Amino acid sequence: MSQMVYTFGGGVRHDDPRAKDKNLLGGKGANLGEMASIGLPVPPGFTITTEECVRYLAEGANFSDSLREEVAKALQHIEKTVGKNFGDNADPLLVSVRSGARVSMPGMMDTVLNLGLNDETVEGLAAVSGDDRFAWDSYRRFVQMYSDVVLGLDHGLFEEALEIAKEENGYFADTEMSADDWRALVGQYKTIVAQEQNGEPFPQDVHEQLWGAIAAVFDSWDSDRAKVYRRLNDIPGGWGTAVNVQAMVFGNMGDTSATGVAFTRDPATGVKEYYGEYLVNAQGEDVVAGIRTPQYLTKSAREASGATAPSMEEAMPAAYQELATVFDLLEKHYKDMQDIEFTVERGKLWMLQTRSGKRTAAAALKLAVDMVAEGLIDEKTAILRVDPMALDQLLHPTLDPDAKRDVLTTGLPASPGAASGKIVLDADTAEAWAERGEAVILCRVETSPEDIHGMHAAKGILTARGGMTSHAAVVARGMGRPCVSGASAVSIDRKTRTLRIGSVELKEGDIITLDGANGQVMNGRVDTIEPKLEGNFAKLMEWADGHRRMGVRTNAETPADCAMARQFGAEGIGLCRTEHMFFDASRVSAVREMILAESEEGRRKALAKLLPEQRKDFTEIFEAMAPLPCTIRLLDPPLHEFLPTGDHEFADLAEITGFGVDHLKRRAEELHEFNPMLGHRGCRLGITYPEIYEMQARAIFEAACDVADKSGLAPIPEVMIPLVGTKRELEILRKLVNDTAATVFTEKGREIDYLVGTMIELPRAALMAGEIAEEAMFFSFGTNDLTQTTLGVSRDDAGRFLSTYVEKGIYARDPFVSIDVDGVGQLVSLAVERGRATRPGIKLGICGEHGGDPASIDFCEKTGLDYVSASPYRVPIARLAAAQAALR
Amino acid sequence: MSQMVYTFGGGVRHDDPRAKDKNLLGGKGANLGEMASIGLPVPPGFTITTEECVRYLAEGANFSDSLREEVAKALQHIEKTVGKNFGDNADPLLVSVRSGARVSMPGMMDTVLNLGLNDETVEGLAAVSGDDRFAWDSYRRFVQMYSDVVLGLDHGLFEEALEIAKEENGYFADTEMSADDWRALVGQYKTIVAQEQNGEPFPQDVHEQLWGAIAAVFDSWDSDRAKVYRRLNDIPGGWGTAVNVQAMVFGNMGDTSATGVAFTRDPATGVKEYYGEYLVNAQGEDVVAGIRTPQYLTKSAREASGATAPSMEEAMPAAYQELATVFDLLEKHYKDMQDIEFTVERGKLWMLQTRSGKRTAAAALKLAVDMVAEGLIDEKTAILRVDPMALDQLLHPTLDPDAKRDVLTTGLPASPGAASGKIVLDADTAEAWAERGEAVILCRVETSPEDIHGMHAAKGILTARGGMTSHAAVVARGMGRPCVSGASAVSIDRKTRTLRIGSVELKEGDIITLDGANGQVMNGRVDTIEPKLEGNFAKLMEWADGHRRMGVRTNAETPADCAMARQFGAEGIGLCRTEHMFFDASRVSAVREMILAESEEGRRKALAKLLPEQRKDFTEIFEAMAPLPCTIRLLDPPLHEFLPTGDHEFADLAEITGFGVDHLKRRAEELHEFNPMLGHRGCRLGITYPEIYEMQARAIFEAACDVADKSGLAPIPEVMIPLVGTKRELEILRKLVNDTAATVFTEKGREIDYLVGTMIELPRAALMAGEIAEEAMFFSFGTNDLTQTTLGVSRDDAGRFLSTYVEKGIYARDPFVSIDVDGVGQLVSLAVERGRATRPGIKLGICGEHGGDPASIDFCEKTGLDYVSASPYRVPIARLAAAQAALR
Repeated sequence: MSQMVYTFGGGVRHDDPRAKDKNLLGGKGANLGEMASIGLPVPPGFTITTEECVRYLAEGANFSDSLREEVAKALQHIEKTVGKNFGDNADPLLVSVRSGARVSMPGMMDTVLNLGLNDETVEGLAAVSGDDRFAWDSYRRFVQMYSDVVLGLDHGLFEEALEIAKEENGYFADTEMSADDWRALVGQYKTIVAQEQNGEPFPQDVHEQLWGAIAAVFDSWDSDRAKVYRRLNDIPGGWGTAVNVQAMVFGNMGDTSATGVAFTRDPATGVKEYYGEYLVNAQGEDVVAGIRTPQYLTKSAREASGATAPSMEEAMPAAYQELATVFDLLEKHYKDMQDIEFTVERGKLWMLQTRSGKRTAAAALKLAVDMVAEGLIDEKTAILRVDPMALDQLLHPTLDPDAKRDVLTTGLPASPGAASGKIVLDADTAEAWAERGEAVILCRVETSPEDIHGMHAAKGILTARGGMTSHAAVVARGMGRPCVSGASAVSIDRKTRTLRIGSVELKEGDIITLDGANGQVMNGRVDTIEPKLEGNFAKLMEWADGHRRMGVRTNAETPADCAMARQFGAEGIGLCRTEHMFFDASRVSAVREMILAESEEGRRKALAKLLPEQRKDFTEIFEAMAPLPCTIRLLDPPLHEFLPTGDHEFADLAEITGFGVDHLKRRAEELHEFNPMLGHRGCRLGITYPEIYEMQARAIFEAACDVADKSGLAPIPEVMIPLVGTKRELEILRKLVNDTAATVFTEKGREIDYLVGTMIELPRAALMAGEIAEEAMFFSFGTNDLTQTTLGVSRDDAGRFLSTYVEKGIYARDPFVSIDVDGVGQLVSLAVERGRATRPGIKLGICGEHGGDPASIDFCEKTGLDYVSASPYRVPIARLAAAQAALR
Repeated sequence: MSQMVYTFGGGVRHDDPRAKDKNLLGGKGANLGEMASIGLPVPPGFTITTEECVRYLAEGANFSDSLREEVAKALQHIEKTVGKNFGDNADPLLVSVRSGARVSMPGMMDTVLNLGLNDETVEGLAAVSGDDRFAWDSYRRFVQMYSDVVLGLDHGLFEEALEIAKEENGYFADTEMSADDWRALVGQYKTIVAQEQNGEPFPQDVHEQLWGAIAAVFDSWDSDRAKVYRRLNDIPGGWGTAVNVQAMVFGNMGDTSATGVAFTRDPATGVKEYYGEYLVNAQGEDVVAGIRTPQYLTKSAREASGATAPSMEEAMPAAYQELATVFDLLEKHYKDMQDIEFTVERGKLWMLQTRSGKRTAAAALKLAVDMVAEGLIDEKTAILRVDPMALDQLLHPTLDPDAKRDVLTTGLPASPGAASGKIVLDADTAEAWAERGEAVILCRVETSPEDIHGMHAAKGILTARGGMTSHAAVVARGMGRPCVSGASAVSIDRKTRTLRIGSVELKEGDIITLDGANGQVMNGRVDTIEPKLEGNFAKLMEWADGHRRMGVRTNAETPADCAMARQFGAEGIGLCRTEHMFFDASRVSAVREMILAESEEGRRKALAKLLPEQRKDFTEIFEAMAPLPCTIRLLDPPLHEFLPTGDHEFADLAEITGFGVDHLKRRAEELHEFNPMLGHRGCRLGITYPEIYEMQARAIFEAACDVADKSGLAPIPEVMIPLVGTKRELEILRKLVNDTAATVFTEKGREIDYLVGTMIELPRAALMAGEIAEEAMFFSFGTNDLTQTTLGVSRDDAGRFLSTYVEKGIYARDPFVSIDVDGVGQLVSLAVERGRATRPGIKLGICGEHGGDPASIDFCEKTGLDYVSASPYRVPIARLAAAQAALR
């Protein structure tokens, strides 16, 4: 059996590499061990491994004899180092028991301090410390914390008892409580415990206390709040937490004692200056609780803020100097900005924790660039150091963090950025109000392609239904609009034009604010701040570009998106969805005319009206992108998506087309599909109505020739056939495209280079990739649809079970956000292999939403794709992630 | 380059095995060669290969020089053998030009007779035959046929001219036309040709005639009617047709000449007696045209029918005797019943064709069994000889073939059998009318699970939409109800309670008749005949069972279906869909209560009401099936399928549940899914609402224990978890089932054997089968859904493009009817391999509709599955197909 307990401090050095393994000891445990081994002042202690937690949770909450033996030995190590014994009535060793997972989960799991106190040892502590009040205050803190965390009693009962005690004594603050007051309160606490536990008293056996606390920490891994946190942060439930048991040091032993938290540099800006807070005569929990206002660490920070309470630099110069030395040592050792907890006990500094500090995106960039300049890290490390997703913060406006927020509800953070505006309940209203200059937030139960114009017009989108990859979310991210989706507390009544969130009823026109970064929906306006793209950003991107192998393209349909994506570094278009162009109000009637036509001739008549419009679309896109390649997907969605839905719209259409409303409704009904995702769409449209694809191909080639003529720069159209499942489909449609190209080239008297290829977005296409590659000059993996079909999950409907699936560990992450490497990835790999076997030079890319997800990009690198394609705002993220993937 | 032309007759013998290859020479060509080589009297000729047809069609209708050379040589072979020259004005060789594909496509492609006649050669023919009238009659026949088939002129023009000629002469019959009349008519025909071709005259060059005819035969392969025929009969478009050019022999040279068609045994019954018809002084086309009534071949047949015109046996005893000898020779040679065309020219017998005769299912069985008894074939050959799908005819009532049919329209032959009954337009009416003893035909735009009770009540089902595997089709086949689906000419108006087909308007209550075997919808009642399962059927099944390796189970949910399937030889249940039981009127309100409950407690309350009902279901099924294994699939469909749809139903439900109608409608709206196929269904229900699966598992185990107690025969429940995509899902749900089983066994004080396994019906499940097999004791391939997800095709929506897809050769066959071996099959094979690698003894079966399709069963055998499961009426088919697959 593997070692279950690792000691640290007191000169212990482990040769075992397991002792440095964060996966095994948790971040806190591994770092405590490492700090101790490089000679920093760390109270001695030991760590129980995460493996043991996983075993404990799986096998039904029991401790093995061998664990008990290892813990007993480790406890002796502490006793020997500190020179006190656990449970010794004369001079008791007290310990803290803390959780510590692989990655920090702040506030999610449990901590017990001052463990080892009982009715006897408290007297010993009082005697040894010479401080009765300190001893009894520590004991009451322990009883209160232990009862809450380990015994599961309502902490309100204890707070109430304290309040009554203060009131009876006429006190206002805890600090007014004397040793005797605390002693009396401990008596009351014990009575409460016995009452609440049906006579079972507060445990006096210190070993019982210890095992109770260890169990509580293990159990807290599976608490509801921890589960939710893990789901939101993509942390697997199978990791477990370690338990750290450590000799207590006391920041609350008078005015020469203190406790604090600090960063080695400013985590908000990345500026190289010590940053932190401390409290004199306090324990760590007091800093967190916010009862007393902490003081600044450095004199300069105090002065800058105009505060009067002395900084630690001023109040405890010796301890401060020691701390500063430790900061520098830690940065040199870890080569990263550190987030530290410390305690000063009667003038002596103790380090309780160090870890890489969380930072804003701006700080991350500055730290990475600065540390390269300082020679602390190299360029590759700098590239790997920055979380690509964090760049998102820099690319969208964000809410002023200091502004007050009246949060009504929280949905899913579907598209980052923030916006305030007037509530509008439909797309037409959104457009109308936006046209008269109003900022609007489009609020819908969920959005559909018919809402696109309203989404464009809106500053932000709120939906009551739909997940992170719902229509609203995908389109909003593509447009760079903030979006909160799946806010299930929101109910919309279009009749009364009201929107209700819980008990709050809002009217259309009332102002709300969305925070797309955390899913908050707020009442009224909250100020936003504009993003600043600093020089560090450009520098890091330049480094990243130097190290990545894969190209980065963008998914874009409008000239504005193209221009923005190109500015963000896109090297071409990976996916231009032509259907979005069909929804434009000026064209949709021709589109509908085409759909409702009952003959090829009728369709051709309507298509003739659309041709100049499509040509204009492509001309603008090519002008923005030439001479870069542009992958253009021919019409993909089921035709009924273009049909009207409301009576009003049918009436309009009847007027335009001359068909009766009944006829139109019947036709719409005929086009209805049970599972449109698996219906008459994609290349099936091209096979059954070749004239549609013919028109699109003509528009593409005419536009390409025109742009090449006018600008001298020829775009490279890559005509992409969607939803192919068989070689034969592609064979038929490739011929159609080639024939159309030949005709246009003859008419225009010039040729341009182009490719014809296909989406791989059906399992069958992946399986048959070897055959399909005979006809395809490129594959673009449409991993949205490939995920839907491989997993059999409609992303529009997955909301009902997806969160349960992630919680129960069925999916490690939302498979629409990060590619399912085991399943979908297998098909992608297989298609790559088979496609290349047939056509060695075949161009391979990904154009699903996954193209902007760092974990998925890593998979693409491993699989050897040539490029990824992401929405414009994700292009920088993809560039960085691609570089990281190449470096790994 | 491969040989393109093969000669036959005149003592030619080919060593080349290609000369016997039906795929290359077509059935007719290969058999002509074979008959000639065994010494039968075959007019000499040659065959142009199917390869050449495929090349001709692919390369744009041109003939290569080498083909022209080979044809010229082959023509010389005929000339030498016959002693006449092609185009010789004195004694011309005439030829027939006929198509001949791999398999017979009767009437689908073109034939030209008497080719080689022109204004000169006709005179030679007249002189040599000494029969002016014969010569000119032959010429006019040739001009008429050639103009129709090769020149593409309207044959009505020629018929009209003939009618006018007869009228002017005061004739009633063609036989009254004299040589001069025919000569005059030929003159008019030539004028018509020149007029219709803008002055281009009828070709006089016999070689031009020949090449024109060859081109016409090749082109006829791609005619619309041939394409439709191929689609209906699953004949690949890539096969092409051969062309047979053969010296003409004349059945129309007076009363010692004749032409006829015959079978070596009776193709309707299989009885061993010569069977056929002939016409004196006629060409083959006259027999087909039906202008004259043919005479019987044998005396006994003539006498049995009471006919007076002499049989061939009586009128031409010598030729008849020669024919009878040929019959016996052919049966010995081909070891099968033959379908023959022959001509007697002035007393001399000529064989023009032989092929395996088409036969009824009853005849097929009798022939197979008799021929084994005769020692002509062995048991294995007998098994392989019978088309499994033909057995379907024997298992359902069929329309009396002699009854008159007033066909209104033709839809898809979705479920075999025939029925007459009153039109009803909804399921409730169907049930109500059936209860009062009326035979009803349920007519719907399409059916849904809510219609099940109406489908049960109806004698047949007619739908305007949906394909061969639509809900209506699948359910109807399962129930053994005849069904015509996708009859798009049908429109239903539920307001006026009328059904319109073309210009015919029918009212609810009017009688129609459906023929599920050919998709015909007929006005009024057509008599049906009951099927007879003869002893041959049992005998062949017994032989088949002796040779098959795979087990055959059934898909069944009701005790009646179970009993029938067992009688048909089912060896267990492969798929029991528990959801059908939920639609029962007496339960659906509890089901709805469960769905609408907003807490686990509420659901459990409703489930408690369902438990006794489900237990009763399973008890009845186990009673019917014990001790055979029964695979029971836990609840699979999305819950909203159970919700009401009409206002009336909502009102009823509101009364039952106490919820308001608005509340119920909102809840139903919330449950609406965009793609229910990919939605919250299958094991996703079990994961999110474990109490549902718990209730079902309890019902299964309680019933199994009860039946084992009562009957002493323990059923073997195989609990099947649907729509699994990950190992973890199965892990969670298997534990739930096992825990429930343990609880029930403790309560009942006994244990029974059972298995827990999963459907493999998602691509991801197939890909991850290795992992999933760790938790699965069996896999059942749900190839319906696996096809939907792998191909990305919703079978409910596929109707819009599927026929185009089959026509354009994108799918060789409807992938829902016959498994897509290349794509879906690849996933099945992979899952089999990976599943067995993990769990060598894992039980593997198929329960999709493909389990009853012979081609798919062949695939299952090759892939090494343990069993197939089919609907009750398909069980005998599956038994035979499984035996054939094992023998191949």
